[in-house]
Amino acid sequence: MCQLLGMNCNSDAAITFSFTGFAARGGRTAAHVDGWGMAFYERSGCRVFHDDQPASESPLAEFLSRYPIKSRIVIAHLRRATQGDVTIANCHPFQREWLGQTWLFANNGDLTSFHPTLNGPYRPVGSTDSERAFCWLLQELRHRFADRQQPPAWHELAPHVAQLSEVIARHGNFNFLLTNGEALYTHCSSRLQVLQRRHPFPMARLVDCDMSLDLSAMNGQNDRLVIVATDPLTTDEAWQPLATGECRVFVDGEEVWRQVNPATRAFPIVDATIGRPWSGLRQRASTAWPLLLRDIAR
Amino acid sequence: MCQLLGMNCNSDAAITFSFTGFAARGGRTAAHVDGWGMAFYERSGCRVFHDDQPASESPLAEFLSRYPIKSRIVIAHLRRATQGDVTIANCHPFQREWLGQTWLFANNGDLTSFHPTLNGPYRPVGSTDSERAFCWLLQELRHRFADRQQPPAWHELAPHVAQLSEVIARHGNFNFLLTNGEALYTHCSSRLQVLQRRHPFPMARLVDCDMSLDLSAMNGQNDRLVIVATDPLTTDEAWQPLATGECRVFVDGEEVWRQVNPATRAFPIVDATIGRPWSGLRQRASTAWPLLLRDIAR
Repeated sequence: MCQLLGMNCNSDAAITFSFTGFAARGGRTAAHVDGWGMAFYERSGCRVFHDDQPASESPLAEFLSRYPIKSRIVIAHLRRATQGDVTIANCHPFQREWLGQTWLFANNGDLTSFHPTLNGPYRPVGSTDSERAFCWLLQELRHRFADRQQPPAWHELAPHVAQLSEVIARHGNFNFLLTNGEALYTHCSSRLQVLQRRHPFPMARLVDCDMSLDLSAMNGQNDRLVIVATDPLTTDEAWQPLATGECRVFVDGEEVWRQVNPATRAFPIVDATIGRPWSGLRQRASTAWPLLLRDIAR
Repeated sequence: MCQLLGMNCNSDAAITFSFTGFAARGGRTAAHVDGWGMAFYERSGCRVFHDDQPASESPLAEFLSRYPIKSRIVIAHLRRATQGDVTIANCHPFQREWLGQTWLFANNGDLTSFHPTLNGPYRPVGSTDSERAFCWLLQELRHRFADRQQPPAWHELAPHVAQLSEVIARHGNFNFLLTNGEALYTHCSSRLQVLQRRHPFPMARLVDCDMSLDLSAMNGQNDRLVIVATDPLTTDEAWQPLATGECRVFVDGEEVWRQVNPATRAFPIVDATIGRPWSGLRQRASTAWPLLLRDIAR
């Protein structure tokens, strides 16, 4: 299984603080060591960083923890391989273009039995079940909006994303972050947590590192953002679990749509760490990185 | 206009030395300051780095000059905008997936009058003429190999790439690097140079920095690689200009295919630096970066 981190904000924000705690789970406080990825939208463009090393040991992850890239939508992923080799091609987020927008997708799940017919323009580059599911999801969205010359709006897409997710989630746990840079689409089968931050901003303390940050010093009265993660990244903040079968959409740091499909069920979690070596400490640790501690820095 | 750098090798190689000289042209020794990008294939996966800052001032470029990513095919691009804003979405290389392979494209040219019909699956995300040409090129390749379930081989693709390039090159200068990670396809309208390195390896001196490297210490008898660049990166090596209308393909550090289309002509070069501010020094300068000086390091 893997770890997801997503952020959506109403202004350009850097999440080096959250990423620092998150990246510790890539070998320092947890065993998600089979590569990682992080993507930032900057207007219509996006930058995607991948590495097949554990995030906690990756010079590129260290660089990103010190280099605040400001974005309204960020998604990140730590991989613990269940299907597919440890290689760059299998690192999330995956990306494809549709109607002039770059779509990104990161998944935490296990879709062993999902082998859909891919007869559209998208084929997996790597060998993960996640990329296969992403290709099918985009293929079906393209098919449903085949007459469009411009990208559909989030309120048109959301019911289709939810319905297609329900189909895929019959085959295994399917917790994902999906985005075109305008909206952040999320789905929960078994495990996904969401946190809304707005004025008044609290003092936040990372779960995975001995680190705290006064968010009120970093944010203004009108700032708001949503953070979505597999497990809460901070203590003393009101993280809320999504329900099984729940799909939520976020735009400009606000939830704008939600739907729960009662037919979806959570599958027993296959712990990929069983029987696989990991030399990490599995304890709360201070980071060795020099840090720029800021979530939203203007 | 822009600057291109491509590398194809018969084993995994790092080109931090070449990139150091190349990146200096992004604001230090030349005015290609409107962003840059660099991409590395690692098996079937690839990593693409973009920045809209000048390469000579970019912390990310500095990071890559110190972090040797080993790859058999690398392409890099320094942008001097002629069409499209200075933004991440307009930074080369551009990428699209076709039949499970990531295709990358970087261009130095100016295709003002090229506005093809895009009726396939690809649309530009940014606003450059280059990305438009790339979308059309891949669209036409898909169309010509529509019956394939597996990627065509380079010897099947090369004549089509050359023929489609000729069509595009009627509209303006079209010097490009194109790759799927297996072969490096190149086309020259006006300006592209190639260098083959193999045993015995020389001492190489960068044109753009006060830096030399004994390549024989870095490479073995069986190593061979090809470097393609808009302008020679080193002195004392046998760079060869491609002819106008020439298409060459490189695989495993060797030229495997070439064709010259005599109908192609070079257009007068529009110097985008005229009338635009640039505060660079325009002189041969030593770099401020701490460096790992190695082209191929095993």
